[in-house]
Amino acid sequence: MFQTKKVIRLYHTDAAGVIFFAQLFVLAHECYEGFMDQVLPLRTILDEGQILMPITHAEADYQKPIRVGDALDVTLTLGAQTAHSFTLNYTFKKDDTQVATVSTRHVVVHADFSGKTRLPEELRQALDAITQ
Amino acid sequence: MFQTKKVIRLYHTDAAGVIFFAQLFVLAHECYEGFMDQVLPLRTILDEGQILMPITHAEADYQKPIRVGDALDVTLTLGAQTAHSFTLNYTFKKDDTQVATVSTRHVVVHADFSGKTRLPEELRQALDAITQ
Amino acid sequence: MFQTKKVIRLYHTDAAGVIFFAQLFVLAHECYEGFMDQVLPLRTILDEGQILMPITHAEADYQKPIRVGDALDVTLTLGAQTAHSFTLNYTFKKDDTQVATVSTRHVVVHADFSGKTRLPEELRQALDAITQ
Amino acid sequence: MFQTKKVIRLYHTDAAGVIFFAQLFVLAHECYEGFMDQVLPLRTILDEGQILMPITHAEADYQKPIRVGDALDVTLTLGAQTAHSFTLNYTFKKDDTQVATVSTRHVVVHADFSGKTRLPEELRQALDAITQ
Repeated sequence: MFQTKKVIRLYHTDAAGVIFFAQLFVLAHECYEGFMDQVLPLRTILDEGQILMPITHAEADYQKPIRVGDALDVTLTLGAQTAHSFTLNYTFKKDDTQVATVSTRHVVVHADFSGKTRLPEELRQALDAITQ
Repeated sequence: MFQTKKVIRLYHTDAAGVIFFAQLFVLAHECYEGFMDQVLPLRTILDEGQILMPITHAEADYQKPIRVGDALDVTLTLGAQTAHSFTLNYTFKKDDTQVATVSTRHVVVHADFSGKTRLPEELRQALDAITQ
Repeated sequence: MFQTKKVIRLYHTDAAGVIFFAQLFVLAHECYEGFMDQVLPLRTILDEGQILMPITHAEADYQKPIRVGDALDVTLTLGAQTAHSFTLNYTFKKDDTQVATVSTRHVVVHADFSGKTRLPEELRQALDAITQ
Repeated sequence: MFQTKKVIRLYHTDAAGVIFFAQLFVLAHECYEGFMDQVLPLRTILDEGQILMPITHAEADYQKPIRVGDALDVTLTLGAQTAHSFTLNYTFKKDDTQVATVSTRHVVVHADFSGKTRLPEELRQALDAITQ
């Protein structure tokens, strides 16, 4: 698995005093980008202009209020995988208590969105390494 | 059902040229806030300080690329409902073609997050009116 | 001048209970995009791929707390203008009381950021029309 | 001075392929929050409920395109200071080249926004330590 730490900042929160729910997806994607930095950076993908890996499904469950200053441990593992897609599961913990989970499904497509294509080999191998 | 229109702005998009997935949840929540404005504005809820209605589950499916300038028709309908919670379903269409859907489940809690409480009566009635 | 209305939504605010300062810039840019929709939509500029109009300077002054649900009247007028750049001034009012101002300076550049180029003629004319 | 590093993530960018200008303010504020974590965390300020330190003026200059994956060195120093306010200056560098600057002016107010009050002593001392 891949692990990182995220501190909740003021812009993640809203006037109800806790995280604005959509920001949890932003935090998950930051974790994903950190993972990809070691494998196939998004910048490289965009510069090469051959493929994109848009998210086709995303979901989150919120178990505990998350507040500004909370330091969360994020764990990334691989869910389902096909030749053209992969699902990533994120677990957010605060002091060993799970506070939220996120899941995102990515499909590999040609950069003009004309259709599916296969996962890059280096990504496939890196995903194997974070299989739960 | 409740309907509104949202135009995709530059800040909704990212360097891949399409909407950043988390922004779809922001757009859905804006639609929800527009609905609540007619029923029980979020500002009123926050000012009264009795209850909050945090999201405990959110999910989205992305069917078509969404780009800056796209004018989307958003439809809001009620999904499952209990004494303490309700699910809202959002459909995003561009020129009558569905491009994405969102679902959010809200639980009504005491404002200190100490436990569940019942849906305000005016909200319960307004939700009845958007039952699919 | 160009005018629009913006309602402050939950995602604009933070745990201090008021607007997160950076969101005022987002609101200003949305107003700018609404103005451009009538002149030269950003989508058209991006699709044509000839020029970009990045912001080289931005500033804001915050006079009154802005809260969720506030309906703000935004006024856009032209500030300084050169052959290659233009400054836009935004005034935000709530019930006729000014609550904030924003200013953004845009420079017209070749789409590869290789250097300045002249304002498109249709934009130059539209800016004339919002000269204060 | 106070220093930190920020990596530009996809959500910071827009369809023009570079950072969305308002996100630079978000990055600056994250740096500020990192500084405050060592002095007087925002969470503590909000929990105590005595004061707030809203931003009354913000400005930014953008010198070079900033793209996804860019690792920026951020330096925070103190600008002007009064009994009730302070200005923070942020410099963003990529590989020793300055790419942008931000400045934010904060005023210390009673938490109900009823008027100005003095800087907390621990903050005053910490600001002394980052005087340029």
